[in-house]
Parts: sequence; C-alpha cells; structure tokens
Amino acid sequence: MLKVDGARLWSDLMTMATIGATARGGSFRTALSDADRDGRNLFVHWAKEAGLEVSVDKIGNIFARRAGTDDSLPPVMAGSHLDTQAPGGKFDGVLGVLAGLEAVRTLNRVGLSTKRPIEIVNWTNEEGARFPPGVVGSNLFAGRTTLEALLATRDRAGILMGDELNRIGYAGHRDVGQRPVDSYLELHIEQGPVLEEAGVTIGAVTHTSNQGGGVIEIIGENGHSQTTRMSRRRNALVGAARIITEIERLGMAQEPHGMVSATVADVWPNNRINIPHRVNVGFLIVHAEGEGRDRILDDIETIARTMGQDCGLEVSFTRSPQRHRFDFPSDLVALTETTAKQLGHTSMRLPTWTAHDALNMHVVCPTALIFVPCRDGISHSELEWCEPAHATAGADVLVNMILDRANRTG
Amino acid sequence: MLKVDGARLWSDLMTMATIGATARGGSFRTALSDADRDGRNLFVHWAKEAGLEVSVDKIGNIFARRAGTDDSLPPVMAGSHLDTQAPGGKFDGVLGVLAGLEAVRTLNRVGLSTKRPIEIVNWTNEEGARFPPGVVGSNLFAGRTTLEALLATRDRAGILMGDELNRIGYAGHRDVGQRPVDSYLELHIEQGPVLEEAGVTIGAVTHTSNQGGGVIEIIGENGHSQTTRMSRRRNALVGAARIITEIERLGMAQEPHGMVSATVADVWPNNRINIPHRVNVGFLIVHAEGEGRDRILDDIETIARTMGQDCGLEVSFTRSPQRHRFDFPSDLVALTETTAKQLGHTSMRLPTWTAHDALNMHVVCPTALIFVPCRDGISHSELEWCEPAHATAGADVLVNMILDRANRTG
Repeated sequence: MLKVDGARLWSDLMTMATIGATARGGSFRTALSDADRDGRNLFVHWAKEAGLEVSVDKIGNIFARRAGTDDSLPPVMAGSHLDTQAPGGKFDGVLGVLAGLEAVRTLNRVGLSTKRPIEIVNWTNEEGARFPPGVVGSNLFAGRTTLEALLATRDRAGILMGDELNRIGYAGHRDVGQRPVDSYLELHIEQGPVLEEAGVTIGAVTHTSNQGGGVIEIIGENGHSQTTRMSRRRNALVGAARIITEIERLGMAQEPHGMVSATVADVWPNNRINIPHRVNVGFLIVHAEGEGRDRILDDIETIARTMGQDCGLEVSFTRSPQRHRFDFPSDLVALTETTAKQLGHTSMRLPTWTAHDALNMHVVCPTALIFVPCRDGISHSELEWCEPAHATAGADVLVNMILDRANRTG
Repeated sequence: MLKVDGARLWSDLMTMATIGATARGGSFRTALSDADRDGRNLFVHWAKEAGLEVSVDKIGNIFARRAGTDDSLPPVMAGSHLDTQAPGGKFDGVLGVLAGLEAVRTLNRVGLSTKRPIEIVNWTNEEGARFPPGVVGSNLFAGRTTLEALLATRDRAGILMGDELNRIGYAGHRDVGQRPVDSYLELHIEQGPVLEEAGVTIGAVTHTSNQGGGVIEIIGENGHSQTTRMSRRRNALVGAARIITEIERLGMAQEPHGMVSATVADVWPNNRINIPHRVNVGFLIVHAEGEGRDRILDDIETIARTMGQDCGLEVSFTRSPQRHRFDFPSDLVALTETTAKQLGHTSMRLPTWTAHDALNMHVVCPTALIFVPCRDGISHSELEWCEPAHATAGADVLVNMILDRANRTG
C-alpha cells in the first residue's frame, strides 16, 4: 500500500492556513476574495512544482492534471475546495485539495504511472459564505445551473461574482464540465462528532440527508422609535424574534433525527431611530427522512403565519430548493472500507448531514466521499481541528483509492 | 400679521419630495447621497432665486442669508434638515427648511426689511440614517463634537462621511459655528399623535424628554448549522431573539411615560450554513423622567446578562450617550402661543419626545421648537402626512416669529 508524506501534507495545510489567517487560529478566505486568490495561487504553484498541468474553467474551477498512460481516458478526479467560511477553519475543504496534491506527489515519488489521467480539483465557492448559495462550481460542472446565473450572483455589497472572478484573475477559458469523468473522490473532515465518539479513523459515506430551508419575510410598518406609541408599533424585528425562538424550540425537538436553527436575519432600515419595517429570517434544515424535513418546513410556515396574525405583521414564506437523500455507489463505499482496512485503519459507514461538492459530482460519475474525524465535531469555526495522524490516514486512503480507480481494468 | 404663500410652500414641499421619491409616497434622501446632493442643489437654487446669499460650512451645513439693516448683528436663524430616513416622508425636516425659505420670500414680497439678518439653514445629517448618529451638523455648530470625528464617520459600506461630503460638492470652506446667533426657530411636524388627537394646530414645545439607549453584543460560537448537534449550539441570534422580545415587553409596560424597542440587529456571519457567533442588538429609550430612563437601562442590562447566563452566551452591554430633559426658554414658548393666537390658530404646550437640531441650538442661543400635527402621529415613514393647511399655519407662525425676533429692540 502507498503511504503519503504526512509531514509534507501537514506543512502544506498549515501554510495554506496562513493565507487569511485569523487571530483565533482560523482562516478567512471567502470565495473570490484577495485571500482566495492568494490561496489559489499557492495551490497552482505547488501543482506546477509537482509537474501537473493546470487549467481553469470559466467559473474558476482549477484542474491540476497528471497524464495517464492512456491519456484519452476520462480522468480520475480528487479534490474539494480552498475557500472558507467567514471565518472558517484550516481543514474544511482544504484537506481534500491538499491531500489530492500529496497523493499525486506520492505517485511521482514512487515512480508509478497510471492508465487513466488524474486531476486534482479546487472547486469555486463551495462555502457560499460571500456569494450564496454554495457548492456552485461543482454544480455548474454537473450541468445543474448556468454560467450566466452564477456570474450574475452578487455579494451583500452588490459586487458581481463575475467581476470578482475577473479581478482575481481566475475567469478561465475552459468550458465548465461537459466532459466525462471516470470517478470523483473527496476526502473531508466529518464536521460532526460520530467518528470521534466511535474512536474510528475513516468514515465511508453511504448516503446524504434530506435538506431544505427557506426565508421568511416579515413586513411591519416604518415609524419613529421615540414617538410611535408602543401599542401602535408594527415592529418586524419583534415578529422575527418570536419566529427565531420557535424555530430553535422546533430544532431541539428533532434530535437526533434532524436539525434546524434560524441563522440569518436581515433588518431594514436597521437604524435605532426607526421601527424595523422588514426583516428576512433564513433557516436551514437537515433530516434523516424526507417526511421529517417536509414536516419541519410545514411547522415553520405555521409558526410564521400564526405570528403574523397575532402580531399584525405580513409574512411571506419562501421554500429554498431541496436536496433529497441519495446513496453513494456501494462499490466505492466498499473500496473505502477495504482500503482503510488494508492500511490498518478502523472504518465505519455513516451518512453526511451537509452538502459537499461530491453531492454534485455524484450525478457526473461514480463518487466516493471519505471522512476523517474532527475535534468535538466542530467545523465552520476557527476552532476546527483535525489530528495530523487522521489527515495522513485520510490521504493514505485517498492515494490508494486513486491508484485503484486510475489503473482498474474495464 | 404676515401670511405666507401656502400654495407656493406646498408646491415646494411636493417638488422636494420628488427627489429620491419612493413608490409608496415617501422620499429616500439619506445624508450625503446623490439624492441629498440634488435636494441641497434645489434648495440653493431657490434660495438664490429669493436673493439670499448662500454659504456652506466644513460639515456641509448650508446657510441662506438675508441681510439686516444692521448687518453686524447676529442673525435670526430658522431651518431644519432636508435629509430623510431610509426611506422617510415628505415633511420631517423638509417643512422647517422650506417654511423658512417661504418666510423670507414673504418678507421680500411685502417689502419688509429687518434690523437683524435672517439665515435659513439646512443642517447636515440630522437623521443619522446612513451615518449614525444623527443631528451632527447642528451638534458641531454648537461645539459639542469635532469636525475630525464627524468626517471619519463611516456608513455600513465603510464609506467615509468626509469623502461623501467632498463627492457631492458640499464640503464648504466656512468654519462650523463659533459665531453668535440671535435666536433659532425650528418648525417641525410633531411626529406624535398629541396635536391631532387634541384637534390643535400649533404646538409650543416646552421641554425635551430623557433619552438613552445602548448596544448589546452577544457572542456565541461559530459552527456548522447542519452538523452541530442542537444541544451544543451557541447561537447568538437565539439569544438576541430573547432580548428583543423582552425589551418589547418592557417597552409596553412603560406607556404612557416612556418607550423602548429593539430596532437594530447586526448578525455575523449571517450565512444560513453557519451558526451566528455574534449579534449586536441596538435600542433607544425615551422617558418623561430621568429615573425612568435609567431604570429601563438597568432592566435591559439585567435582561441581557440573565439571558447570557441562561444560554451560555457572552454579553457586553454598552450605554450610549444620554440626553437629559431641558426646558426651552419660556419667552419663546409664549411667543409661539401668542403668535398662533394672533393668527387665529389654536395652540397648546407639549414636550418633544425625540431629538431635533433645536436641541443642539438651544445651547447656542434662545431657541423655539414649533410643532404642527401629522396624520396618526406617523413619521420616519413613507406614510408621513401633514395637511396643507397645517403646513401653512406653521409657516405663518414662523414668519411672524422671525419678524418679531429680527426687529426686536435690545
């Protein structure tokens, strides 16, 4: 079995983390920011140093390619994303990209060529922290959205995603997707507590959860906050507070099958001297069962409409696009388990609760999602942590799976 | 008694309202925006047309001067502000400036000169809608803040007030304040329901209220909103919701002596996939008694700290600068009443619940604040409305008070 250079991988992870580093130990490298540009540049530099051929597509996805002995075959692809939450940690996404790079370096080091080409990919804007929603680079690669729609996305400051892509120099020439891929392998921290609590090193992801969400728009009436009698106020923020509280109560009642919290509140005019006349509250749901997700959506709509009637506020309820549970191919789940076993690592099967680029690539080609533990299940946080031994173990599993897929017959 | 041209005043009010007009009948002319620039330009055009000499000071306050027969005497000043809330109405502030202009036109029309000069003023950024806090142009004129501090104020997009003042062409050369003013007279809609409910046309404002406010910073912990177990979430937005709800309950219990609502909420990172780790909640208080205001502040601090302990969130509580009740000079209150009576208008004495530029000018010179009714007590709203007859009545009172002050002996 191949073994990566774990020390080199760890050094790369820590080096990447210095770009957009925060005082509490995280990284702030939101999509298409200056820091994202610098992180991309570092990845491209390392990829070229490893002899890979780098190309960029029109949405900024970066592909670093190692030729196959039969280079006309579709590539085995491995990767994830270098962008972070605002702020995020050192590992979410970064591990999958840099472990892929280290896997290729390992093949180089031992002088192994492969039948199929290998491509290490950095997907654009997985997090959606600056330009919501996320996982869009891979979504477009899978033909599930349009380039025009993505380039026209704006951040909260009104800046166009297309303009930022040009500004940082990553509006590439290559068409997005529309080409065959042999397989896609993504290594990622679990972002939950299951592996750590079970004392298991490798997670073979079997299926996804049912996801949904929505935005509740609450309309009150403008007014002066020092002269309008209390009984005449139609304060949209007070209505939002009731909804936020009740959504949290609903979320607590779902455990362990599902989760939901209100996480976004946009307030207008958001000025102390004015009674807020409009608030948008956003929430995300995950649930093991589709019916559970749908029931939560219905319950939140009832909560919102009841609040509107009780408080004299107008309420609009918009459901976001939903993701339905699917199963990853069983042969790739099995390959993850056997590879881990051959390397002497414990493994277990588990679902993913959240979206990854792998959920889009699943519609393009056979896809595997491989988890390693993270401390206390914490992610999207500066406190995110992955033990060096677990990062190495995940990369060891990845390189052997890449080799298996790239050299398999048939 | 002098009478203004009410039709001309109404026409001017409606013309000014077209600048930054909103679909619901309000105006969106926040300080130093393009619309504010256009509104200022229109005022300057009208002032010059009326033969007034226009000057601008370093914070953008505009003074339109009519010479006195003894032009070395300090001027009688009248005015208010042309900037609006986001959005605001057609009358808040605008009435005081345009009624002042119409008063001067009336003196011109009847060919009356005055001993003292008269200046009609448009104060910069009364509303604080874009660059909080408000009433800063008059505050600086009164020597209660510094030019440097104001120019360094930023809006939510990070743009400097000083840069915007330059951009719109209203960074004047004149020093701010530091000169004697004979008297300051401000006509304004009441922004409350008292005059309308009493069926009275003119309000002679006797005193101010006790004002205060604060910002509560709530710190939780970042986390992934689809993988962090509900029981482990430290969602600052959920803590904010509890505080917002309890502040409203506290406010309802103050009527009719005081008011308080939470009106501002800033959320970080405000992304659906992340548990909010920081929320700032802002609120404003008014109360007839200083002790009442202080008790509300103490109660809100208790609400916030109790929530923090119960929910495992960190709480910081910052009290804003407070305004204490003061009385306007009784001779000017009496002059407002007698002038109204001589014109055949009903009048009554009442306090102001909110801040006006008059509250700053009070420390510079004898000051009068004159109210006219507004529909349903609504202001800071596109629904704001002042009956044409009330606008005219207010302007009639104003021109006669200006004449009295400008020609008085001693």
